[in-house]
Amino acid sequence: MVPLLEARVFGRCSHRGEQEGLALSNTAGGSMKLSELVDRSGVSSSTLKHWIRVGILPSGRLRNKTTAVYDERHVDRALLILLMRDEYRASVEQIRALTSLIDGGTSTLEVMNACQAFALGTPPGSAADPALAPYRERTYELMRRRDWRGYPGAAEQGLVHALSTASKVGLDYDVDDLMAYADALEPLAAHNVTALGPTGSADQIARRMLTAINARARQLVAVSSLAHAAVSIRAAIARGDAPEDLAKPPARD
Amino acid sequence: MVPLLEARVFGRCSHRGEQEGLALSNTAGGSMKLSELVDRSGVSSSTLKHWIRVGILPSGRLRNKTTAVYDERHVDRALLILLMRDEYRASVEQIRALTSLIDGGTSTLEVMNACQAFALGTPPGSAADPALAPYRERTYELMRRRDWRGYPGAAEQGLVHALSTASKVGLDYDVDDLMAYADALEPLAAHNVTALGPTGSADQIARRMLTAINARARQLVAVSSLAHAAVSIRAAIARGDAPEDLAKPPARD
Repeated sequence: MVPLLEARVFGRCSHRGEQEGLALSNTAGGSMKLSELVDRSGVSSSTLKHWIRVGILPSGRLRNKTTAVYDERHVDRALLILLMRDEYRASVEQIRALTSLIDGGTSTLEVMNACQAFALGTPPGSAADPALAPYRERTYELMRRRDWRGYPGAAEQGLVHALSTASKVGLDYDVDDLMAYADALEPLAAHNVTALGPTGSADQIARRMLTAINARARQLVAVSSLAHAAVSIRAAIARGDAPEDLAKPPARD
Repeated sequence: MVPLLEARVFGRCSHRGEQEGLALSNTAGGSMKLSELVDRSGVSSSTLKHWIRVGILPSGRLRNKTTAVYDERHVDRALLILLMRDEYRASVEQIRALTSLIDGGTSTLEVMNACQAFALGTPPGSAADPALAPYRERTYELMRRRDWRGYPGAAEQGLVHALSTASKVGLDYDVDDLMAYADALEPLAAHNVTALGPTGSADQIARRMLTAINARARQLVAVSSLAHAAVSIRAAIARGDAPEDLAKPPARD
């Protein structure tokens, strides 16, 4: 797996997740054996045990001296960890940062915001970084022109960070460029947004949100790449550098 | 760093890179000391030595028994590795797959195609996977409707893979959806494509291409996320669930 975009840790691990995780499991009435959790999550018992050891998955409730039992929350948590690990290549520290936020009992909105920051790869502290002022002002100007709300939030900080990163490699997007992107992307967003209702447990909400952002990003970037390839080839044909029928897809069956 | 999108290795490492890398350095007339390579690349000498040991950076040319010298190609290669490691979180195996392709003397077009596959996270072998047939047909139909060329190529396979991945998490995009995305993204592509001229060494071309895809993807996804947040908030205000002036950016100074 290779990420298309970098992304950063929320911050240093506070180890709060471990304590809260344990607290959570102690109050949970579970009845699932480890083997069932393996079946339900598709994760091996040794990996589950590792996740418990590093404090991102709560321990089971001890039924007796040798048997721990698990519940639906363990399934949800295992699936969330799996997604972060496999689709985002997140480190244990990154996973712990999100799960400890969830286990700390923060609001749904905060969890969603943290998911967005995580998925966008916004580094912690970028909200206040004075070096980012020009990109922040560009982002605000876009938001004002379109009457877009979302301040202060992870999406706005994500754009500030994206503009700063692009600028470091010589790609500068001014507000008119951003407006062109916004013209293109706002109708698609309107089409999508109903799918993301904040129902279910915090782990389920986080998983649905990270899944949707990942799938949409992947698809957005793939269509964009295909468009870039098509435009390049069209230009080569127009210049006479490539034959008229170059690289056409197969005809319909 | 956390990737927004997963991506896969090209394939198993062939170790060809090491041999070709050595061959390359033996014919190169370099005059840079290791300390200069450290300055030019911003990479520590121990990391550079590690990269040489694992075969992704060619050894220097031995000037005498104790001193190896380096040249511009080592600078280019070090910067390419740095980008792949830091912006894409690529593993040594993934870096070796691309650098061994470059060192094998493949065509510029092949290198660009490999960069696109790498950046899009297209797994090797997905081109021929029969399980992907429905997504492939959807991609072809999009290409036919828009008269987009690019078959067979990494961008087209990237879209097939993206559609398949999205579908696995319950998000299905039909050809009409894809057309809406294409309507949005084609004009932006036309605006961008001139920036990517294939000039310079293969390492420079690869670095420019990976940099551009990463920056554009980051920016595209960030604007999309901001639009999603804005649309969500607008809907909440319209429903009366949020105050009219919620989450507005600060007024212009």
